[in-house]
Amino acid sequence: MQVEGLSINLATIREQCGFADAVDICLKHGITAIAPWRDQVAAIGLEEAARIVRSNGLTLTGLCRGGFFPAVDGAGREKAFDDNRRAIDEAAALGADCLVLVVGGLPGASKDIEAARGMVEEGIAAVLPHARAAGVPLAIEPLHPMYAADRACVNTLGQALDICEKLGPGVGVAIDVYHVWWDPDLASQIARAGEMKAILAHHICDWLVPTRDTLTDRGMMGDGVIDLKGIRRRIEAAGFRGAQEVEIFSADNWWKRPADEVIATCVERYRSSC
Amino acid sequence: MQVEGLSINLATIREQCGFADAVDICLKHGITAIAPWRDQVAAIGLEEAARIVRSNGLTLTGLCRGGFFPAVDGAGREKAFDDNRRAIDEAAALGADCLVLVVGGLPGASKDIEAARGMVEEGIAAVLPHARAAGVPLAIEPLHPMYAADRACVNTLGQALDICEKLGPGVGVAIDVYHVWWDPDLASQIARAGEMKAILAHHICDWLVPTRDTLTDRGMMGDGVIDLKGIRRRIEAAGFRGAQEVEIFSADNWWKRPADEVIATCVERYRSSC
Repeated sequence: MQVEGLSINLATIREQCGFADAVDICLKHGITAIAPWRDQVAAIGLEEAARIVRSNGLTLTGLCRGGFFPAVDGAGREKAFDDNRRAIDEAAALGADCLVLVVGGLPGASKDIEAARGMVEEGIAAVLPHARAAGVPLAIEPLHPMYAADRACVNTLGQALDICEKLGPGVGVAIDVYHVWWDPDLASQIARAGEMKAILAHHICDWLVPTRDTLTDRGMMGDGVIDLKGIRRRIEAAGFRGAQEVEIFSADNWWKRPADEVIATCVERYRSSC
Repeated sequence: MQVEGLSINLATIREQCGFADAVDICLKHGITAIAPWRDQVAAIGLEEAARIVRSNGLTLTGLCRGGFFPAVDGAGREKAFDDNRRAIDEAAALGADCLVLVVGGLPGASKDIEAARGMVEEGIAAVLPHARAAGVPLAIEPLHPMYAADRACVNTLGQALDICEKLGPGVGVAIDVYHVWWDPDLASQIARAGEMKAILAHHICDWLVPTRDTLTDRGMMGDGVIDLKGIRRRIEAAGFRGAQEVEIFSADNWWKRPADEVIATCVERYRSSC
């Protein structure tokens, strides 16, 4: 029986299996939408990954990830452009709905977050023509402010949408509840994103209390404090019709369990808690 | 030689010494401004603490802390009001510049952060007459979004100022760089706070990369990525003339060093990095 509206970001079972096995487990549980990471695609080869996607009629709710634009010098920034263009090509080859951008943080020993934000905007602008030509929407993923220094200096949905407005067609947002659930402006910014037709992806997991690690202690839906149903209602009211994509980094829990159990739990929680 | 413009929040050496010893070490280093926590005051007794403050001509840049307003029922909320009124009385007895409010997070198993935010506003409104009568300004401290669930559901300076605007005189903000440095609206909100004459305190420390613990891995000024000088310029340009208050929670580093070394380092870094 197919599970409509659920996608599995393959990072959720990245410690347990590679691309092909992950797809098999998803299919076994009736899931036909996935979001792989570039290293997972590279490990099996882009061509073989694309073949598996096509032959199984899979939807790719995103390819993770491009971004990391800030760099200490022009050469570093050019290198990021090149890498992002390659990521765009891979997303196109896979037929992904979007390329997710984790935009990058402070380069080197910089304390100038405004400068980093400028580099992000320039970087997206630089690769946007390539993305448009390839037909691959770029999805800026605002990351939780605790990642502002080392992963992404775009930290609110409003900030991401400001960039989308400036850059025009071909750029939107990936809304991950983990990163934005706390935002006092969340409701209005989701509505704004809907009006802009900028919502490209909707990622889910949960915020655990306590959170023991800033990166790898994300929770299964229902195990934390995020109002998943409420946020989903807003995102759907804003016109988004894509799948909810489960993305859980969990070094001490879900990454240690059998992939089959993890995916079965995702399906169960998707039905009960999302 | 007196160190002008520097205050030590006594949490910075809370593992090493109590109120009286902490004051002695501060005085030895030329520091005449402190910010104690209520448990530190209680341990020596309010009267004795107030005597030490007066007899040494100390400035108290704040008393930590009131707040924690959200609760699962009315009785819990009333209890919080009572506790906040006691905290106000203590701040008055000590002659503190303000009572710092860590407003509280989600009560019980609630996932309704909007409701929690409503309880915070109601709670501050409930104790505000008492604070005004006592002449104690209440300083809402917006906490980093990573504390939204368990410590404070007021997570941006803009959100705190919205509450100040609604509630009127007697409520302002404590701006802690650790909590707000990432905020894309920081510059405009500091300027707004200045126009509102709402800046009651300026806390400093640093954001370490990586951050190994969400609560107790804060850095000494200069050891992290926060543009302390830049933020200070904005806060002073907004009209704030109070001291910069060092508040460092550091279980694995500064709390393990001799208090004398910690305070000497605070003075040195205050001069070089703030």
